[in-house]
Amino acid sequence: MAERLIVVGADAGGMAAASQARRRRGPDDLEIVAFDRGRFTSYSSCGIPYWISGLVDERDDLVARDPATFREQFHVDVRLRHEVTAIDLDRREVVARDLTGGGDVRERFDTLVYATGATPVHPKWARTDAAGVFGVQTLDDGDALRDWLEGDPQPRRAVVVGGGYIGVEMAEALIVRGLSVILVEQADQPMSTVDPDMGKLVADAMRGLGVDIRTGVTVTGLETHDGRVTGVCTDAGEFPADVVVLGLGVRPNTALAEAAGLPVGPSGGIRVDRRMRVVGVDGVWAAGDCVETLHRVSGQPVHIPLGTHANKQGRVAGINIGGGYATFPGVIGTAVTKVCDLEVGRTGLRESDAAAAGFEFVSVVTESTNRAGYYPGARTMTVKLIAEKPSGRLLGAQIVGWSEAAKRIDALAVALWNGMTVDEMTGLDLGYAPPYAPVWDPVLIAARKAVDALT
Amino acid sequence: MAERLIVVGADAGGMAAASQARRRRGPDDLEIVAFDRGRFTSYSSCGIPYWISGLVDERDDLVARDPATFREQFHVDVRLRHEVTAIDLDRREVVARDLTGGGDVRERFDTLVYATGATPVHPKWARTDAAGVFGVQTLDDGDALRDWLEGDPQPRRAVVVGGGYIGVEMAEALIVRGLSVILVEQADQPMSTVDPDMGKLVADAMRGLGVDIRTGVTVTGLETHDGRVTGVCTDAGEFPADVVVLGLGVRPNTALAEAAGLPVGPSGGIRVDRRMRVVGVDGVWAAGDCVETLHRVSGQPVHIPLGTHANKQGRVAGINIGGGYATFPGVIGTAVTKVCDLEVGRTGLRESDAAAAGFEFVSVVTESTNRAGYYPGARTMTVKLIAEKPSGRLLGAQIVGWSEAAKRIDALAVALWNGMTVDEMTGLDLGYAPPYAPVWDPVLIAARKAVDALT
Repeated sequence: MAERLIVVGADAGGMAAASQARRRRGPDDLEIVAFDRGRFTSYSSCGIPYWISGLVDERDDLVARDPATFREQFHVDVRLRHEVTAIDLDRREVVARDLTGGGDVRERFDTLVYATGATPVHPKWARTDAAGVFGVQTLDDGDALRDWLEGDPQPRRAVVVGGGYIGVEMAEALIVRGLSVILVEQADQPMSTVDPDMGKLVADAMRGLGVDIRTGVTVTGLETHDGRVTGVCTDAGEFPADVVVLGLGVRPNTALAEAAGLPVGPSGGIRVDRRMRVVGVDGVWAAGDCVETLHRVSGQPVHIPLGTHANKQGRVAGINIGGGYATFPGVIGTAVTKVCDLEVGRTGLRESDAAAAGFEFVSVVTESTNRAGYYPGARTMTVKLIAEKPSGRLLGAQIVGWSEAAKRIDALAVALWNGMTVDEMTGLDLGYAPPYAPVWDPVLIAARKAVDALT
Repeated sequence: MAERLIVVGADAGGMAAASQARRRRGPDDLEIVAFDRGRFTSYSSCGIPYWISGLVDERDDLVARDPATFREQFHVDVRLRHEVTAIDLDRREVVARDLTGGGDVRERFDTLVYATGATPVHPKWARTDAAGVFGVQTLDDGDALRDWLEGDPQPRRAVVVGGGYIGVEMAEALIVRGLSVILVEQADQPMSTVDPDMGKLVADAMRGLGVDIRTGVTVTGLETHDGRVTGVCTDAGEFPADVVVLGLGVRPNTALAEAAGLPVGPSGGIRVDRRMRVVGVDGVWAAGDCVETLHRVSGQPVHIPLGTHANKQGRVAGINIGGGYATFPGVIGTAVTKVCDLEVGRTGLRESDAAAAGFEFVSVVTESTNRAGYYPGARTMTVKLIAEKPSGRLLGAQIVGWSEAAKRIDALAVALWNGMTVDEMTGLDLGYAPPYAPVWDPVLIAARKAVDALT
């Protein structure tokens, strides 16, 4: 009898694991069943803002691989609209509910991949039956929001709650659609994934785009009328709204795991080892937005939900399940985003993270340009580096700029990954040509300034 | 009496050294005199093609720092149009000829920085008095070429000889100016700084731009009439031309150094140690396009003339002369360029270099996209990796693609610099967002394929 792998959650992490396991073991050797409560496999939730804005035409463009592909090419028994409601580790069984009304099924497993992702944080005030309040986590969420935006009466005034990546991207998407947008953020500034001095550049760009940013404001409730949302109540007054978008972050979806006795770490994610095995539980693996992972710089466990990590973690789990050997090395918190034409990249620790992790450090900010100063289209690129004192080891980096700024963070991410010091970095052989950089690359200029700050 | 530093050559390498030395030592402690036979200090010769094409308006835009700045802010006695004709190491003197007719001067030095750059390779057939034949090394060359292109009769037909970076960039510049352009290349393909399979993508793009590329063709002479060039003679027939641009590469300008007894290495460049001291010669330093440097991957001495290296080497020499400590770590051959909208990046060894250096290796080529496939503007990005067998250590990488492709090479350059294996690279935490990359970054996809090729 073939060994049986059950995958709980058929998105990036789960299906990367299934594909890799299948690549190494045929259907006669390993049977694979994947459950998902949704209607889609492996889709890009990061792409939803661009679909809402209209930049991306079709919802199905966001689906990387559809169930038919998994069934036919990978011989995975994909069962959508099936929510796994219990995992019995002793009996090696899961219970799955057919959400279309087919009742419960019990399925035996030898090996399990837990990949349930994350769930949006919805504070009490947001738990409402009123229409016009949306999260943007799933394609169904996106469908519902698009329908609402195109409905009658057509919404004109939007309030976005939360100024993280999704909030910022959604604010832009709604502006692009022609709505007036208020962004409400509890902290002093949106885009707190970068330090405040860098975040200010982003906030300024958003204001330039027409987003009305209200910081230091706490939402206390929603106003509704006839079952439709009409406004957002805050400690700074009420903001009228025909549509409210929630971007308050996500947390690991671990309810099912905790009920089954899987260990959860301090970050709230499931604890896994380097090979993505759930710690202390034989034959059970986990991957994606539901796990916690090692931050290579701070040495602390963190929860960083991101499709690229989910895919890598799933691949690692799948290679191991398939009989190969692979480890997930942890993360350093690299992220990029775009606000209108302004580009933002970050990696490693912010100043506040570095302090919290106990590092002594210097930080420097330099302004340079993305191209040679004389080359048409040269625009300011601001680079911030945070370096350990006195070693000079890079701890974190942030870039804000226009045209071709964000992905420059990758060179800094690889330097950070390898534990380079800013002094070593001044010698790096980076690509130089007038359309791409001044003769001193912005990264090198920043490294030089950091060296000076250390002496 | 102050110590006396003489800088021979007032471009990137020499003036970076002067500035850094001055930063650490005041005029009372260190007197600095800089000679240059040209009329400019610290200019961007890499920018000349963009000035010829008209993208950059003014010649002076290409001058990073003018003589007045060096004189006033850095207290450097800059003497332009002065060619150093002899260096006497025993008497610690240089002889400089005033090219404006002022005769020879002798100047004493305690410390010397040799930074004479490189000179274009001009084969016998190119040594002609005929008008209309141009190199593109100095701003004066550029001035002369621009005057010719705007002259009467206005040139219509250009032949560019040599398909390296300068040849390719000049071919594009001349197309932009409305000329018909033939590019003559002796090898099987232009852009031989990347492997032939990648170079073909560049050649195709150039043909798409309208450049008539003739490969495997050797130039044998020039046709002239009334003192003006009229054509280029080759072993494949004659190509009519109203203007001929030479892009046949450069070699280190070491005649003066060799006459003085400075050591020249196998690459033809001056031999220096890690601190940019000329090997075996006290108090004499060298930097820039005239020196040879260590290739960190092959372990061989190489001559790679590039402004970014010259600046770094000059900075290192200047810090050391100033009493500090700095070393130049060598190069890995990173370079980027743009052909119309096609972008090219490369780092490390090509297949032919890797074989010549004695490595066993695998190479893989992958096609991916610069953005998520569903994001508007997503275009093909081709990534090639060369990895040592069986270790998996990255030896070289090349990228060809559109929009935001070239500078992606930096992440690979930093990985290569740090000796990463392709297996380690599959775990790298690179920036992901739909406007910038698919969920598997092109670099990661290539690393995965290389891992597969190694097993």
